[in-house]
Amino acid sequence: MERHFDEELRQLKSQLLKMAEMAQAAITQAVEALKNRDKDAAQRVIDSDVGMDSLELVIDDKCLDLIALHQPMAGDLRFITTAIKLNAELERIGDLAVDVAQRALEISGKPELKPLVDIPRLGEMAKSMTGKAIEAFIKGDTALAKAVVLSDAEADDLKRAVEKELIYDYMMKEAATADRAVPLLLAARHLERVCDHAVSMAEDIIYMVSAVVVRHHPEELK
Amino acid sequence: MERHFDEELRQLKSQLLKMAEMAQAAITQAVEALKNRDKDAAQRVIDSDVGMDSLELVIDDKCLDLIALHQPMAGDLRFITTAIKLNAELERIGDLAVDVAQRALEISGKPELKPLVDIPRLGEMAKSMTGKAIEAFIKGDTALAKAVVLSDAEADDLKRAVEKELIYDYMMKEAATADRAVPLLLAARHLERVCDHAVSMAEDIIYMVSAVVVRHHPEELK
Repeated sequence: MERHFDEELRQLKSQLLKMAEMAQAAITQAVEALKNRDKDAAQRVIDSDVGMDSLELVIDDKCLDLIALHQPMAGDLRFITTAIKLNAELERIGDLAVDVAQRALEISGKPELKPLVDIPRLGEMAKSMTGKAIEAFIKGDTALAKAVVLSDAEADDLKRAVEKELIYDYMMKEAATADRAVPLLLAARHLERVCDHAVSMAEDIIYMVSAVVVRHHPEELK
Repeated sequence: MERHFDEELRQLKSQLLKMAEMAQAAITQAVEALKNRDKDAAQRVIDSDVGMDSLELVIDDKCLDLIALHQPMAGDLRFITTAIKLNAELERIGDLAVDVAQRALEISGKPELKPLVDIPRLGEMAKSMTGKAIEAFIKGDTALAKAVVLSDAEADDLKRAVEKELIYDYMMKEAATADRAVPLLLAARHLERVCDHAVSMAEDIIYMVSAVVVRHHPEELK
């Protein structure tokens, strides 16, 4: 029985890892589609989201079954309820990749506003923070989770820089750029929200491991 | 023991109701602050979010304790794991009210772009959908939950109309409006995301009650 439970937990970890890999791939592909204003690539990201939606439900049911059948205590219970939350966060990250792909669709028929540099950087951060958060969960590595929490400020600064440039150097100088600048501004915000979800995941993991509430007091980590 | 458990569930319901009321109040106040470009009112919304953050943690711990101490089966277990999810959604709704308040701060020192009509309407929808979702949970009322899911299309249309007007009738006609139009466009998106969270809650409730997966197949409700 005990060994069976451990095996189930291992499966749960590997399913969550799969979910994270799908989310990361969706981010990369959505940012590429945006960079190249590639309608077909954008549509592929949108179409493939259904795979994450199904896996989310499978993982959710597995978590409930694990609680109902094995009635785990303290540590294992917190591990499973944390898995429920991470699963929901990953599904949201997939939705945000779809949002980025939708912004790519919006600009796909229009001339290039500017070559994108900062937005792909933000995409890289979003992908990396998502990967580190799930790694921190699987290894129970709070130091890695804390690094994710602290890297959010950088993502926030980058998003702000993108917004400022688009508003003051494009939209306010040349009105005709607005219908291309707004989708880019929104894409930067979508990617920064992926980073926020990675931070939420990291906070849940720290809470799970240390049972200390850090969620609303990031200053205590510094 | 059984009676004690029922009493605990009643408390859980009333704490979630409190959380929903706080979220609704934050939305109303944030939209008012935006309408009046009122810096102080916006700051009050931002400052009061800490109350929702604390209550979220209290509710979360209560849910875990209920599972650990009472080892509830099937129906009760699903009720509690649904409460964990709704709690997280309500906290996010509070964060979105803070986002709207931040947009209010951004435009507070600037002249009025236009009197706001559609954004307050979207705020009303966001508030009403949040209230109905939590009512559906407390009463186990799937018809009400389904109504929340179906009303999302209207919120989406309204958001799209606001965006179109701001981009085509303001930003693209008069470049100087962009730094006031962008915060309004974002505020409309924040409020529409509140509606999305209400829909997520409603889908979790339908799933809880019927154990039928509707999350990713809203067409089956029509």
